[in-house]
Parts: sequence; structure tokens; C-alpha cells
Amino acid sequence: MTTTVALPSTPPRGPVPADQGCLVVQCPDTPGVVSAISTFLTAAGANILTLDQHATAETGGRFFQRTTFRLPGLVAARTELEARFATEVADRFGMQYRLTEVGKPKRVAILVSKTDHCVLDLLWRNRRGDLAMDVAMVVSNHPDLADRARPFGVPFFHVPATRDNRAEAEQRILELLRGNVDLVVLARYMQIITSEFLAEVGVPLINIHHSFLPAFIGAGPYQKAKDRGVKLIGATAHYVTPDLDEGPIIEQDVVRVDHRHATHDLVRLGADVERAVLSRAVAAHLEDRVLLDGNSTIVF
Amino acid sequence: MTTTVALPSTPPRGPVPADQGCLVVQCPDTPGVVSAISTFLTAAGANILTLDQHATAETGGRFFQRTTFRLPGLVAARTELEARFATEVADRFGMQYRLTEVGKPKRVAILVSKTDHCVLDLLWRNRRGDLAMDVAMVVSNHPDLADRARPFGVPFFHVPATRDNRAEAEQRILELLRGNVDLVVLARYMQIITSEFLAEVGVPLINIHHSFLPAFIGAGPYQKAKDRGVKLIGATAHYVTPDLDEGPIIEQDVVRVDHRHATHDLVRLGADVERAVLSRAVAAHLEDRVLLDGNSTIVF
Amino acid sequence: MTTTVALPSTPPRGPVPADQGCLVVQCPDTPGVVSAISTFLTAAGANILTLDQHATAETGGRFFQRTTFRLPGLVAARTELEARFATEVADRFGMQYRLTEVGKPKRVAILVSKTDHCVLDLLWRNRRGDLAMDVAMVVSNHPDLADRARPFGVPFFHVPATRDNRAEAEQRILELLRGNVDLVVLARYMQIITSEFLAEVGVPLINIHHSFLPAFIGAGPYQKAKDRGVKLIGATAHYVTPDLDEGPIIEQDVVRVDHRHATHDLVRLGADVERAVLSRAVAAHLEDRVLLDGNSTIVF
Amino acid sequence: MTTTVALPSTPPRGPVPADQGCLVVQCPDTPGVVSAISTFLTAAGANILTLDQHATAETGGRFFQRTTFRLPGLVAARTELEARFATEVADRFGMQYRLTEVGKPKRVAILVSKTDHCVLDLLWRNRRGDLAMDVAMVVSNHPDLADRARPFGVPFFHVPATRDNRAEAEQRILELLRGNVDLVVLARYMQIITSEFLAEVGVPLINIHHSFLPAFIGAGPYQKAKDRGVKLIGATAHYVTPDLDEGPIIEQDVVRVDHRHATHDLVRLGADVERAVLSRAVAAHLEDRVLLDGNSTIVF
Repeated sequence: MTTTVALPSTPPRGPVPADQGCLVVQCPDTPGVVSAISTFLTAAGANILTLDQHATAETGGRFFQRTTFRLPGLVAARTELEARFATEVADRFGMQYRLTEVGKPKRVAILVSKTDHCVLDLLWRNRRGDLAMDVAMVVSNHPDLADRARPFGVPFFHVPATRDNRAEAEQRILELLRGNVDLVVLARYMQIITSEFLAEVGVPLINIHHSFLPAFIGAGPYQKAKDRGVKLIGATAHYVTPDLDEGPIIEQDVVRVDHRHATHDLVRLGADVERAVLSRAVAAHLEDRVLLDGNSTIVF
Repeated sequence: MTTTVALPSTPPRGPVPADQGCLVVQCPDTPGVVSAISTFLTAAGANILTLDQHATAETGGRFFQRTTFRLPGLVAARTELEARFATEVADRFGMQYRLTEVGKPKRVAILVSKTDHCVLDLLWRNRRGDLAMDVAMVVSNHPDLADRARPFGVPFFHVPATRDNRAEAEQRILELLRGNVDLVVLARYMQIITSEFLAEVGVPLINIHHSFLPAFIGAGPYQKAKDRGVKLIGATAHYVTPDLDEGPIIEQDVVRVDHRHATHDLVRLGADVERAVLSRAVAAHLEDRVLLDGNSTIVF
Repeated sequence: MTTTVALPSTPPRGPVPADQGCLVVQCPDTPGVVSAISTFLTAAGANILTLDQHATAETGGRFFQRTTFRLPGLVAARTELEARFATEVADRFGMQYRLTEVGKPKRVAILVSKTDHCVLDLLWRNRRGDLAMDVAMVVSNHPDLADRARPFGVPFFHVPATRDNRAEAEQRILELLRGNVDLVVLARYMQIITSEFLAEVGVPLINIHHSFLPAFIGAGPYQKAKDRGVKLIGATAHYVTPDLDEGPIIEQDVVRVDHRHATHDLVRLGADVERAVLSRAVAAHLEDRVLLDGNSTIVF
Repeated sequence: MTTTVALPSTPPRGPVPADQGCLVVQCPDTPGVVSAISTFLTAAGANILTLDQHATAETGGRFFQRTTFRLPGLVAARTELEARFATEVADRFGMQYRLTEVGKPKRVAILVSKTDHCVLDLLWRNRRGDLAMDVAMVVSNHPDLADRARPFGVPFFHVPATRDNRAEAEQRILELLRGNVDLVVLARYMQIITSEFLAEVGVPLINIHHSFLPAFIGAGPYQKAKDRGVKLIGATAHYVTPDLDEGPIIEQDVVRVDHRHATHDLVRLGADVERAVLSRAVAAHLEDRVLLDGNSTIVF
């Protein structure tokens, strides 16, 4: 009976060809916009792989499109392609747009406190190759999860945060993040995020919370839910805005419960749905599938 | 090619034997209570068919039990059995209890306004024999649904109700209900129910509403949900208390939606989940499966 | 207390503007195909409303697209538009295509036997305006459902069918259908459909059955499922091919069950999921959302 | 910025009081059985905490009951209590029964091959205190997962198994298991289990597989499912019998998929549902909630 050192059994995320791009646009809805984008890409030598589009009204609404394509030599040509797209298409239709390389994973910081269900699910899915991200760091206001995060090969930083040193702690986190990440995921980070932090961080933040809000606000939401006899427990993942839990919703889900579930069972089941919902929301963001429309989202 | 008059294709609800009973109790949790009930029933000659019980805490909580049993001659013996149960068991444990005959359907009034999805689902399920109820009447503040309800063989009464005649309209409805029903179902009845009505009606009321509350309160909840980009649409069935939409929850469910669903699609999908949730809640109540525990429910 | 004749409370399906079209195509995947279609439509004066596309592989696969658009004067221009599309686009890419008017509902025959759950859900949804269909007729091998179907304003034809007169019965049904319908829905029609019937009917057929297949084949599937202790009951809607229950799947769903459900409960819950799945499958077909890819479907 | 060694953030599974017991019985259904059990327990000084019972028919069926209770001094009294229960109750009703201490976790071996989703979910849930088990060992026919399992503090044994050394490998596994475990979980163990192994192992085995069976049998089930265009992907957890994938079902679940999911997405989503279903099945077994009724299960 011998045991040997493990080799990685899950291959890293498939080598996405370097020549795959993703173009995400939004603009006032105008006849001809789909044709203009697809003709531009085709003329540039690109082969459209997927195309999702949405208009918020039959006329006079807002138009959204996500297109993935293959274009040999994309990496070298991207800057010039983007400039040409601006001149030839985007300016004409008043578009906001992003042109990204599919093969270039986003750099992500995960902020956590003491519970591990969300961060471990993200790290595990990333190791399997299911998420298009490089985890630049895990940051926590507690030291507890260091030994759980580091075996995944990611740096863990402990930044103690209390009511008294919030400004200082946020500055230390901003120093860690600056220039290093494209996305911050609050994976059950139990500290308030200030408007100042949001103004400075310069990248989107995704948060996860239980779905009862605005019901059962404040401490002990699961106990309050138990007292009301709710039959569903849910979680909501959303972008963080200055109104902390009111930002645009990316993903939601629920599980059924009944009277046999004690409050601690609700907490446990809530954790299950939280990790599933947060992982799906992060996956969608990483693939540039989430487009903002005011306080709402379009998830292609 | 001949067509003939239809015979009913669905047999009426199976002839539940006249000797099946249901005993529902609640009391402070005390050692020996399960044994006391089951021993009483066995000694009385009953065979226990199903038994569900629940205690809200390991010690010092509240105890709930629903027992169905077969007892030859139950109909004739019920009054005496109930009296003996009071003396021998209920008084000793400080129990509230109900002893009902399973074969005796509850008499139900369905209150509706103009939309038919909830009332038709209830009437259709009842015709198939899936609900243990006799529909005594459908009452509406609009005449529109008369021709849809009456083919199911139930009386339809039109009681116009406006802001100005609410008290009078409620009195007319109370006259119709008095002595005739064991349950009132608000199947999308778009009128406020006053505390006075609740105080006088003397039977439980079950209501159905969308699940966003307390979010998106007031008019146009689906438009507000659309603006927020919610990914789930739900419905909640609950008992009516003077706090109209805050009563004990009986059943909830949700359906997934996305940005492609216009507001009218959310309304339509909301109707689907409303009819499913209301029918399940009513079915549970009719079978004496719903026990009240403060503002919460136990649904066996 | 007066009751009056009901007025229809549900407005008929929204007056879809006469100038909305739907173009569905499939062809070998080729660079430039999206651009070609959208450029053709834009040049023709159409405004694209929605566009869904799918390729079965990154290269060398098959391409599918559904585009809805508004084109003033579509009804008058449709024939010429179709001819031009054939010449300018379809021939070039080897496309199969359909160009339909969104405002022109499909004509549907519903075939039933004795159980009403599927047919009533379809008729009720159609009356609310949720389905883009005109129900040309309900045909049954039993007379039972005449009085349930006709109140919806649809003709009901009784065509007795037995093992002995199958060929004759199928001929009578074919006479009823010929030229009158665009779709046949088998809404729990408990007769075998022969290959001869399929060869002659000339329109698609959609069927619904329980989801256990190929398990629990033959009579009494719910009893067999009960004996195996299954925890999920499901239904599958599919197009009918000569291999009756092996045709391309359009929609599936399930409900949870447990040991407390007797076999007749499984049948009843199976009916719930059957009506939901069939209605969703029919809705998708009516809106030209279902594209065939070999024995598989793409449902946009 | 300091980081420190992590302390466990999740408390171990709550210290279940040593005086909680679980009594699981089955016997031919007989009047008086519920009363006999509850009276026995009450007379013995036990306080019933939960009671679930089920009869497979109104009369003449089989009866199943699971009762949890608190009895001060249970650990010391258990042997004598069991003997008295045999004499006073079990023999009289022809019962099979098990009397277990809730606070005594079952000893479990987890058998795996190369994929980690099921084993890591079990180990993670166990570390959080959600599962009533001690993981005695992880055994694999590959060395790959050693470094993923051992950080959870469990032994990992590598037992190479091939077509040629199956008998020998099974013998080595049996030696490891003998006397050490109460349950074996096949958490994606991709080796055939022989009847000889089952005959010798002496404890139950739980397996997990995709839910298509008997459809898409053999290699590549997800590709076959993709080719058929299935809309649901599911998993089934069951006890292992000599008919490998035909044993009594404990738990099942599904997730929705559509044409946009490539075969490798189906595999990935299948893994998600597999880990959820297996963890729920194992949790139910560990708490003595699963009772066998022929080839079916009752899961209280």
C-alpha cells in the first residue's frame, strides 16, 4: 500500500486560442446597428462565434450586444482594431464598448472574513478551469482562512479591520489592489465598504447576500425568517454601489425549507445557495456576459 | 363524425371511507405526549395511518401533532370520542385540538376580481378530485367570471365593491358566507379586507400575492422588479391577519426570469406561480396539514 | 345580489403589428453569414428586434439563426422579400429558411383522449392571449371532453378509434386536418400514431410523455417508478417521429416526490408537470423558436 | 501586513448530547405499533424528540418508523434498553430495528478515482460539522488526490486497480476497510465493484451516477445526451446492489441545460449536481433517515 505525491488531476482551463475576442457594446437602439457591427467584424477578417443582443424596447430603447469572434492575430491587432471600431462604428452610434481577449483571464481579489464556503468554491472552480480568472490575492480581516486559501497557490493577506481603523484598513487594501486586479469579489466579507473605497478602487465589486432584503434587515436574518415561517431561502449576487445592498442584481437562487429546519439549518442551506449564486455571478462577469442597464443587468 | 354530450371523465374524489379521522393537536412540549395520544387512539379501536409531529425546541418548546387514523363507526362515535379525548388527554397536557372526519370536505368560498388563473385552477383541481372541498360559492366584485365559474357547477355571486360602498359590500359578502363556509380563499380578490370583516367572518382566509414584499410595495410591483433586474419571480400564500400581507406563510415558490422577459411576461409568469402556490396552500389547509405557531406555520 | 353575463376579462393577445416578421435559417457555418443576414434585412428597410444565433462548433459546424424584425408593409412585401432573400443570401450559403409573419397565428389541432389537464391548459393560455395560435379543432377518440373544450369557442370532433379501426380513424382525422392546420398537438392522445399518418399529415406533431423512458416502459410507469423509489417525476415534450417517443426533445421538467406520495399522487403530479411542459413546448414552437438539428433541438 | 497560522473558523459539529438516541424499526403494519413504541420509550424515561412513520398501505402494508429521543444515561443503558425493546416490543410485532446513539458518528471510507468534486464536497461539509461522520480513510486507484484529501486530516491510501488485478485490489481494499468503517461512499470511483466484494464488505455502499440510465448507457453519456438534445442533466445517489446501477435510490436532482452548453459544460454541470446529490444522500444515511423497503427507500 503506497501513497505518492498527487499530480494535478484536473487539467488547467482549456488553452483558449489567443485569437478569440469579445466585443461588448451598448448604445441607443438604432436601425442598422447589428448589421454595422457584424459587417465591421467580418470585413476585419473575424469569424463570429456567438452573438447575443437585446433591446429594451421595440423603438426608442437601449441596445446591447455581446459578440465573440475568432480573428487570427488578434493579440497583435487588438489596439488598432479597437481604434478602427471607434472611428467606423462606435462614434456613429454613440456606443460604449469593450473589446477584450477571451484568452486573457481577469485578475481577481477575493475579500473574505471567517466563513469559507464562498471563497473555497471560487478557488476550487478556478483550479478545475471553470472560471476565466487569475486569483491575485485573498484578503481577509481575520487570519483564519490562510491555510485554506494558500494550498490553491494564491497569496493570502491579513488586514485587520475594526470599527476604529476602517479608513486605515481600507487604505491598506487599496494599496494591495492598486493596479493588480480587474475585479473584487466580496465572498462573505463582513465589513462595510465605504463610498470612499468605491470611489478609489476603480474596478467592479461583486457582493453576495441573503435574498430576504429589504425584509429581515440587520442582524440575525435567518432567525427572523424562521420566526416568519418562510418556505424559501435565497441568495442574491450583485454589483456593489454606494447603496450597499441595492446594486444591480446579477444572479439569484433559492432552496426550499420547512419547519423541520432549525435556524442553524437555514444558515447552512443559505451558505449552499450563496456559494452557488456567487460562483455563477462571478463566472458570468469574467466572461463579459453581464451588461449594466441603469440599476438592472442584462446577463447574456 | 358524431359528437355527443360529455360524461365526466374524471371520477369524483375517491370515496374516502367514512371511518377515517384526523386529529390535530398542539400543546406545551411534555414527555409522554406522543405516547398518550397514540395509546388513547389505539385503546379507542383506531388504527393510526399517518403521524407527523414537531417540537419547536428540544426542551421547553411547543409540540404539534397531526394523526390520521381509521376507526370503524367514526361518524357516529365522533362526539363521544372527542369528549373522551378532552377528558383523558387534552386537558392533562393543556392541548388545543381539532378532530375532523377526513371524508367530510370543507366548504369553501372563493373570492375573485377579474383575473381567472387562480380560481380556475382551484375549480379544475376540485373537479378532478384533488382537493377535499365543496365550493359553496364564487363571489366577485365584478361580473366577468360568472361564465367561467358556473360550468363547474358552483354558484357565482356578483357583489360590486368600490371605495365608497366597502362596508356595505362586506356586509353582503358576510351574509352570503355566514354559516355556509369553513374557509375563504382570496384568489386574486383586489379589494382590501377590513379588520371588521376579519373579526366577523369566523373562518380562516387564505390570500396569494407576489413574493417581493416588502420590496416593490404598492402599484406596479412587476415593473419595479423589472427595473431592478430581478432574476426570480415568486408568489406567497398566507393566512390573512389584520396586517394584510404579513400573515403566516403557508407556501411559496419562484420561477426564473431574465432580461428577455418584458414586464407583461413577468405578470404572466407570476400568474403561473400564483396559481400553483395557492392551490398547494389550499390543498394543505383542506387536509388539516397546516398548524399555526405564532406568526409561523408548520405544514405537515 | 345580481349576477350578469360575463364579459371577457382577458384582452385578446396583443395586436401584434402586421409589420413584424420572423426569419429562421440554418446552414453550414460560414464566416460572414450573420453579417449577410443583418445587412440584407437592414437594406430592405427592416429594423432588427431580436437576434439569436448558434453554431454547433467553432469551425465546420452548423449555423442557426432566428431574427425578428419590423418592416413597414411586410404583409404586402413578404413574397417578394422572400424571393430576394433566396437569391441574395440563402442560395449563397446553402440555407434552409422560413420567413413568417409574427402577427399571423399558427392553426392548431389538439388531439386528446379522456384526460383534460393538457388540453385545458392550452385552451386557457390561448384565451388569455399567451399563445400565438388559432385552435382549429379538438379531436378525440372519446366524446368525454366535448363540453370542456367547446366553451372555449373551438370545434370538437369525436373520432372513435380502436385497435380494429385504426386505419379508418386515422383517415378521418387526416380529412379533418388536411389544409386546416399548421401543427398537431398530442395532448395525452392515447392512440398509436402510425408511420402512414406521419407521412401524410404534412405538419409537425408535438407529443408529451413522462420522462422515465426508456425506463419503466409500457403500462403503469408510475407504479414502476414508485416501486423503484424515484425521487423525481418528469415530463418530456418532443416532436413525433416514426420512433414515437424518441423524437427531438423540445422541453423537459421535473417535480420532487417522496415515499409519502402514493402512485395516484405521482400520476397527479405527473399531470401537473405534463401540462406545464407541453404548454411551454407549444409556445416555443408557435413563435418559431425551435430549430431542428438532427435529432436534437435548439430552442431560442 | 502580517499573516498568521489559521485557526479553525468552523466549530466542529455541535456536541450532540451523549443521551440522544435514534430508534429505527420496520415490521408488518399492525394496529397499536406506534403506541407500543412510544409507550416503551416513555416508560423507559425517554423524551421523544422527533417521530416519523410511514405505512405502505392502509391495511396489510409494511410499517416504518424513525424516532429520536433523549434518555439521560443512554450510553450506559443502551445494551440493556435494546434487549428490553427486543423482548417487550420487537418480537411481538416481528420488527427489524436499529438503536443508535446520535452522538456517535459513523465511520466512513470514501473511494475515489481522479475527479475531486464529490470527495472534496464531503470532506468540506464534514469539516464544517454538517455531516455526522468520521472519515476513516480515502482510498483511490490513483495517487492524484492525496494532496487534496490529506489537508482535511484524513488518511489517503493508494490502491492501484486495473482490469488485471481487480481481485487483488479488492482484497487490499477489504483489508483496509475490515472492522474500520460503517459505510463506504463511492465518490466517483470508476472501477467495477464485484459481487464478491459486496458479499464480503459487510457495510452499505452508496454510489453516485448520472440520471439518464437506462438511457445513454456505457461510455460518453453526456455526449449521447447532447446528441439527443436533453434539457435536464441529473444525478442519482443509490445503495449499491449486485445490479450496480439499479439499487435503491436515495436522492436525485437535476439542472437545466440548453443548446448553448457544450458537452464539456454538461459534464461540469453534471459534477455540480452529483456533488450536491451525493452529499445529501450521505447526510441522510448518516442520520439513519434512510429505510429500505424492497428496492425502494423511505427517506425520513
